[in-house]
Amino acid sequence: MSDVLIQGGRIITAVDDYVADILIHDGKIEAIGRSLSVESAQTYDATGLFVFPGGVDVHTHMESSQGPAITCDTYETGTISAAFGGTTTIIDFAQQEKGESAKATFDRRLELAEPQIGIDVGFHLILTDVRPEVLSELPDLINQDGVSSFKMFMAYPDILMVDDASIFRTMRTVGTHGGMVNLHAENGAVIQVLIEEALAQGNTSPKYHALTRPRIMEAEATHRAIRLAELAEIPVYIVHLSSEEALQVVVEARDRGIPAFAETCPHYLFLTIEKYDIPGFESAKYVMTPPLREHSCQHALWRGLRFDDLQIVSTDHCPFCLNEQPLGINYSKQLGKNDFSKIPNGAPGVELRLTLLYDGGVRTGKITLNRFVQLVSTAPAKMFGLFPRKGAIAVGSDADIVLFDPNKTHTLSAATHHSRVDYSLFEGREVTGKVEKVFLRGELIVDGDRYLGKSGKGQYLKRSASGAIL
Amino acid sequence: MSDVLIQGGRIITAVDDYVADILIHDGKIEAIGRSLSVESAQTYDATGLFVFPGGVDVHTHMESSQGPAITCDTYETGTISAAFGGTTTIIDFAQQEKGESAKATFDRRLELAEPQIGIDVGFHLILTDVRPEVLSELPDLINQDGVSSFKMFMAYPDILMVDDASIFRTMRTVGTHGGMVNLHAENGAVIQVLIEEALAQGNTSPKYHALTRPRIMEAEATHRAIRLAELAEIPVYIVHLSSEEALQVVVEARDRGIPAFAETCPHYLFLTIEKYDIPGFESAKYVMTPPLREHSCQHALWRGLRFDDLQIVSTDHCPFCLNEQPLGINYSKQLGKNDFSKIPNGAPGVELRLTLLYDGGVRTGKITLNRFVQLVSTAPAKMFGLFPRKGAIAVGSDADIVLFDPNKTHTLSAATHHSRVDYSLFEGREVTGKVEKVFLRGELIVDGDRYLGKSGKGQYLKRSASGAIL
Amino acid sequence: MSDVLIQGGRIITAVDDYVADILIHDGKIEAIGRSLSVESAQTYDATGLFVFPGGVDVHTHMESSQGPAITCDTYETGTISAAFGGTTTIIDFAQQEKGESAKATFDRRLELAEPQIGIDVGFHLILTDVRPEVLSELPDLINQDGVSSFKMFMAYPDILMVDDASIFRTMRTVGTHGGMVNLHAENGAVIQVLIEEALAQGNTSPKYHALTRPRIMEAEATHRAIRLAELAEIPVYIVHLSSEEALQVVVEARDRGIPAFAETCPHYLFLTIEKYDIPGFESAKYVMTPPLREHSCQHALWRGLRFDDLQIVSTDHCPFCLNEQPLGINYSKQLGKNDFSKIPNGAPGVELRLTLLYDGGVRTGKITLNRFVQLVSTAPAKMFGLFPRKGAIAVGSDADIVLFDPNKTHTLSAATHHSRVDYSLFEGREVTGKVEKVFLRGELIVDGDRYLGKSGKGQYLKRSASGAIL
Amino acid sequence: MSDVLIQGGRIITAVDDYVADILIHDGKIEAIGRSLSVESAQTYDATGLFVFPGGVDVHTHMESSQGPAITCDTYETGTISAAFGGTTTIIDFAQQEKGESAKATFDRRLELAEPQIGIDVGFHLILTDVRPEVLSELPDLINQDGVSSFKMFMAYPDILMVDDASIFRTMRTVGTHGGMVNLHAENGAVIQVLIEEALAQGNTSPKYHALTRPRIMEAEATHRAIRLAELAEIPVYIVHLSSEEALQVVVEARDRGIPAFAETCPHYLFLTIEKYDIPGFESAKYVMTPPLREHSCQHALWRGLRFDDLQIVSTDHCPFCLNEQPLGINYSKQLGKNDFSKIPNGAPGVELRLTLLYDGGVRTGKITLNRFVQLVSTAPAKMFGLFPRKGAIAVGSDADIVLFDPNKTHTLSAATHHSRVDYSLFEGREVTGKVEKVFLRGELIVDGDRYLGKSGKGQYLKRSASGAIL
Repeated sequence: MSDVLIQGGRIITAVDDYVADILIHDGKIEAIGRSLSVESAQTYDATGLFVFPGGVDVHTHMESSQGPAITCDTYETGTISAAFGGTTTIIDFAQQEKGESAKATFDRRLELAEPQIGIDVGFHLILTDVRPEVLSELPDLINQDGVSSFKMFMAYPDILMVDDASIFRTMRTVGTHGGMVNLHAENGAVIQVLIEEALAQGNTSPKYHALTRPRIMEAEATHRAIRLAELAEIPVYIVHLSSEEALQVVVEARDRGIPAFAETCPHYLFLTIEKYDIPGFESAKYVMTPPLREHSCQHALWRGLRFDDLQIVSTDHCPFCLNEQPLGINYSKQLGKNDFSKIPNGAPGVELRLTLLYDGGVRTGKITLNRFVQLVSTAPAKMFGLFPRKGAIAVGSDADIVLFDPNKTHTLSAATHHSRVDYSLFEGREVTGKVEKVFLRGELIVDGDRYLGKSGKGQYLKRSASGAIL
Repeated sequence: MSDVLIQGGRIITAVDDYVADILIHDGKIEAIGRSLSVESAQTYDATGLFVFPGGVDVHTHMESSQGPAITCDTYETGTISAAFGGTTTIIDFAQQEKGESAKATFDRRLELAEPQIGIDVGFHLILTDVRPEVLSELPDLINQDGVSSFKMFMAYPDILMVDDASIFRTMRTVGTHGGMVNLHAENGAVIQVLIEEALAQGNTSPKYHALTRPRIMEAEATHRAIRLAELAEIPVYIVHLSSEEALQVVVEARDRGIPAFAETCPHYLFLTIEKYDIPGFESAKYVMTPPLREHSCQHALWRGLRFDDLQIVSTDHCPFCLNEQPLGINYSKQLGKNDFSKIPNGAPGVELRLTLLYDGGVRTGKITLNRFVQLVSTAPAKMFGLFPRKGAIAVGSDADIVLFDPNKTHTLSAATHHSRVDYSLFEGREVTGKVEKVFLRGELIVDGDRYLGKSGKGQYLKRSASGAIL
Repeated sequence: MSDVLIQGGRIITAVDDYVADILIHDGKIEAIGRSLSVESAQTYDATGLFVFPGGVDVHTHMESSQGPAITCDTYETGTISAAFGGTTTIIDFAQQEKGESAKATFDRRLELAEPQIGIDVGFHLILTDVRPEVLSELPDLINQDGVSSFKMFMAYPDILMVDDASIFRTMRTVGTHGGMVNLHAENGAVIQVLIEEALAQGNTSPKYHALTRPRIMEAEATHRAIRLAELAEIPVYIVHLSSEEALQVVVEARDRGIPAFAETCPHYLFLTIEKYDIPGFESAKYVMTPPLREHSCQHALWRGLRFDDLQIVSTDHCPFCLNEQPLGINYSKQLGKNDFSKIPNGAPGVELRLTLLYDGGVRTGKITLNRFVQLVSTAPAKMFGLFPRKGAIAVGSDADIVLFDPNKTHTLSAATHHSRVDYSLFEGREVTGKVEKVFLRGELIVDGDRYLGKSGKGQYLKRSASGAIL
Repeated sequence: MSDVLIQGGRIITAVDDYVADILIHDGKIEAIGRSLSVESAQTYDATGLFVFPGGVDVHTHMESSQGPAITCDTYETGTISAAFGGTTTIIDFAQQEKGESAKATFDRRLELAEPQIGIDVGFHLILTDVRPEVLSELPDLINQDGVSSFKMFMAYPDILMVDDASIFRTMRTVGTHGGMVNLHAENGAVIQVLIEEALAQGNTSPKYHALTRPRIMEAEATHRAIRLAELAEIPVYIVHLSSEEALQVVVEARDRGIPAFAETCPHYLFLTIEKYDIPGFESAKYVMTPPLREHSCQHALWRGLRFDDLQIVSTDHCPFCLNEQPLGINYSKQLGKNDFSKIPNGAPGVELRLTLLYDGGVRTGKITLNRFVQLVSTAPAKMFGLFPRKGAIAVGSDADIVLFDPNKTHTLSAATHHSRVDYSLFEGREVTGKVEKVFLRGELIVDGDRYLGKSGKGQYLKRSASGAIL
């Protein structure tokens, strides 16, 4: 592999902003400087472009089962879609079956993913069955397999939900080894009552998905998760935080010195609950969990992103087709056509994160360019034990590099995205700022509309301690 | 029954403070005035004494089972003890067995208590098994049987603890009928993990009772309870709040306009966690739940009482003997001699509430005399649907009246109290302020050291809506 | 003076609610009871009526100078208007001239008022010139003259505003003698900048009165006042609190245990800033300070009233005519016709407090009947050292009694009110609940539309310690 | 000037941490890379050392008058001391005399400093006399002279204190030009009352300096400053924040989305109020403003530094000798020997910031290495318009570089520091971590104990907009 030279771009990191050349050797950043001249390097002109470290998306669900349903992106198609969006690393999930060992869960998932992935991948382990023998496996998973984060669900009773004792036991076990627990924080038991009430009253349309998942039940579970972590004296990470009430809970904890962290997602920043008023089943496109919220929540979330009460923007990419065809009913939201509670939960987005956040966040003045890089690349890498290999444009780091044209305007559409899903949450939205070229460890894998990567060329990433970001 | 005239006392209500005579006719207050003269009335001179409305203690456990243990006061001895303390009304508990109907629970308890009680008694219903058919009974219990408050436990898994769905369902059901849910707010699941850890490490002494019930797990459950009530849009009442963190949660809710209420108990106001350092098993005397807390919590609780963030002082009278004799092992804390988790939880106190709060609260300037009456009588009566029958010195109210000598100093001791329990939490404490005479519906039932009441003369109280205090 | 008997009314106090007769002897309440029968008493039938303790309005400005302007109600007309509104006590102001002694200020004002007043009256002393010799007078004013509250202005630079040192010195001086400082809390210096900016830009209409007095400048001064009191370790009272930001400051202080108190006024509860959009000079009717606020503030204020973060509702009755005639330009807002900063600040309201708060607060379920009495009578009396003489229906208290018809609907109008002012803030508003009869120390002074009182029959009230309400 | 090569150091920036070589050309960073080899470059081996961007200290007082007193470091000695401490940029103060124009103030100060300075220097302008014509000068000062921050005092009445109108007018004026106002936030008027009280009672010793400057008066002024900025809609910066109450005010503002910033100083992080109990006049060493605080404040400040509620650590280097000799009485705290209020306020520290914060912050685990660099270099540079020229190790930035030995232990002492002051706040304290070499724009100015710089080689820094850090 020959050296690569990226010339004249405006390099943006989480703190810096300067024009320089980047020399890549053996997949890593070898030097950064003015007028670097290297014989025989393959040279790219980045003049007028932003040079970002590759995006790190810590919340995706590829080939992921949800009851009878399965997300419609394979690791192959999902990582291609990510790459086009400027994301060179994802952390996906290995989900434990009841009765299964944690190690088996991990091995099974790694085996499925590894041959397919076009970008680098790590895994959070989803624990659904926290037996003592499972707990005893976790230190090795952290230290040997590089799985340092464990997701648990406070929602979805009888399926994914675990009780507080399980969460607390896991926190106690992994905390001393550099592990962290990620929580889906909604009070599943109460939400289940609301769902049953809604269905009993014949309220079956997608809108009731939102109406049965109230903001304060997210706040409740967020508070509970943080209190458990406070007692266990370990950091805690709240996934897909959507409501101002939940954010307020995180803020109060941080104001008391508790290392509580949270991510939000682009759909909570740019879309609101009004979407569920679209007539017919089309609003099922927006059936993700938590649901879209009121406008006031967006205001709160942006403040959180600005003042570091929210540390990360991830996508929660969890794609199900709106229609049954072409992929079949199991990939489709039509499973819940007559009962909102059966609609597969989730929405696509892995490809849109950088462009949306740049257009709607940086260009509007809500966040700075440096903060943008922090949110989509550096903080995720630090939070989940990938830094400085990922999330940095610095000597020695992986040469995962995005060349981004800040002035190019384009239109988002399912017709042009690279996921297999048949709709876009942002269909027709015109945005300015576009990923032009993407390098993965020095190799050009995306060049405009062309995908140059190759399945299996992505690597599994063993991660170091999670949560050590403060 | 002849008329009764109480002359010249200083009448203290939750707002007023004046000297006057009180004329009682047919058990009710007939008139209040200067120099009331009534032929043929039995007359008592209250000059120099405070005249309080009879105390209302909304948290007692008489003849109450706790696994193999049972509290050592019968309804007879317990109500006698209460009477000597200036309490003329208690709200005790009827605890549902698993599988039992709510109505059967209530009937069973009423039948046990009614022949024994020497003062007036209401019941909270403890729900442990919230089946749909049980929920459907509750409106009648409220409206016909006068049971308008329902206690549920967030602690004691596998025994009393119910899940959030059960709490929420109950809230939804009773809220529309004027019912309220009272919560024992501790995260039982996490506490159970801590107990198991402690025992596994050989930590079996009473002190570990306190160490395994951390303040923030009380705060967690308090927050959860309030959020559920907020969603259900009904008031909520937290029993025996002990920690500053839990109080802070209540404060924040009230600051947002949520009708969240809480009581604390004298032992949290006057004793601290240092008691568990008493060597040997003697510290088992202080094994109640929640446990005694750090000194800083007392400071917070007094502020809460002063600024109405805490509305009520109750006793949580739950007496178990320290020693096996004379009542037998089932009435004794010795059941947990080798394992703190088996110590029957609870402590006595029904007789000491007024004198302790007067001595340690009013005399120290922490609360006013009016606030004292509000906390021990008027607010409990209003909170639980007994006002204005109880909790008032006003025309038409029951003539439950306490004559209190604010200057008499005496020493608290198990040797002189009237409970069957063999110890006092406040043994040897010298206090100023003593109940001299107690009238129940116009009849003198306590006169100095003499008990003039009679078992079965107490009445069961059908209560109206709970929680309508704001 | 013969005895008076009020029969069969529903007596409402700050805690109680019962039907009884009230016997009045020598201007004081002699007895309360069922079926009181007294020979030779003058008897009034109150069946179906509410019986309230007479209203106590702690914020009125009668015959009060404001630069060239003077409020249009004399002590005679102002107290007649108050009486018709069910208010039997006002605390008005004696305002120190620069260079004047405090005692001279008080004497001067008392001399003016005493011959005119038809109800009982106390005075707050407004300090504008806090020289050491003035400070040295204050203990005697409190202890001998019964002036236990001192108002100071943080607004109106060069006229009324005093600096923080003066406020703090006054707090230090009066605190040890049972005195309290009341603050008009707005940052006058910054507001002056905004006024000058507005005028410089040609913005002279009444609306700019509101736009130049922002809510956060009220919050700032409120915070400052409370911090000064916290340092001085005395209670503090914020007058006419209008904004949610200022209330939030009070809430935070109380949550920390600081004895901070505040009143709000009916116009902040029922009117909003939209009034300033009325074209022409008519909106000058609403030029009071602080100005009317946004709707969200009303929501916050009601919560504050409900949860006791606001303790009192006063009127800040400060009447200036809208038109020049009939009383002359000095009584008129026309002084500021071409310059909003010259409009006399203030609005009438002393007659409407009870009926507005009953109609808009009790009838809408925002506050209870007991809370209503607490806010308009009992708390003001307690806060300012008038209790139990005033603010109570209890044996020994002054027989200041209001008979109120809760069902009578009437229409508010300048045509029917008894103030000399030529407009009503609530012109045309239909309200339910009306003062029917008013007794002052046992004498009927208002009977329907007839005024039976007499100028000079009101008494000056020496007050005991202020701020001792907690 | 020949090229410079720094080899093999561990480069720490506010986000990154990697080993590389740094090539410096023409005073700026030319390249960063692995094994950079450059002919003819002067080479330094940094193996085993940390490589930090040069420290930026935004709060120093060189040759600064304070009544009759003057700080004992000239721009020459002060910048030498700074250099030895790893600080290559200071922002000092140009203080307006009453009646003076702002431009004259700046010119005068620049003329004094420029020939002396050994490191780069910017100025904040201290405004004491905010006349309209002074306000009109400020845009040019910002845009042409590069003075984008304006310090104002809320303390020291009659000397430095300005009123709220002046602060607000300045905020309004500079905000639209990228200027920011820095506040010394203490309520000077109230403090003056306390000082007068103390002196009147004969309390003249240094301890009363602390006792007359209470924490809540810092909180008050901090709140006021932030509210003014909130109204003016510009960022605000609080200097030398010392108390938990003041920090809480900043936290609440940030939680509401207000761009409020604050610095603290090493003495508040490492010393406490107990120092004032040192007998005799020695405690005058600790007479700085605000004074040292209680231990609980340290805990709060560290939390603030960790969670970015405090953004910067500066020194407030303001050196006065404890003894009269050798520099004379005007440089000495002896001016206040008999009256604490006459002790020149201030303490030295410009040389100790990096080593203290590394030893006491990084080594104790309170903050990370990256956060350390952020606090002492990058955030100050960004906050005050010097980034990316200063505060970065990035291509194109000034080659201000510190080589720091993380393992070298040494003892702090006045005997070895380079300030002219005759004492050290940290005399005898053993610390680990030492500045070894310091480069200013590529020139080695400190090499171990040798100073290689030259007076006048420092440059005046025109700064761009302040406050644009979020």
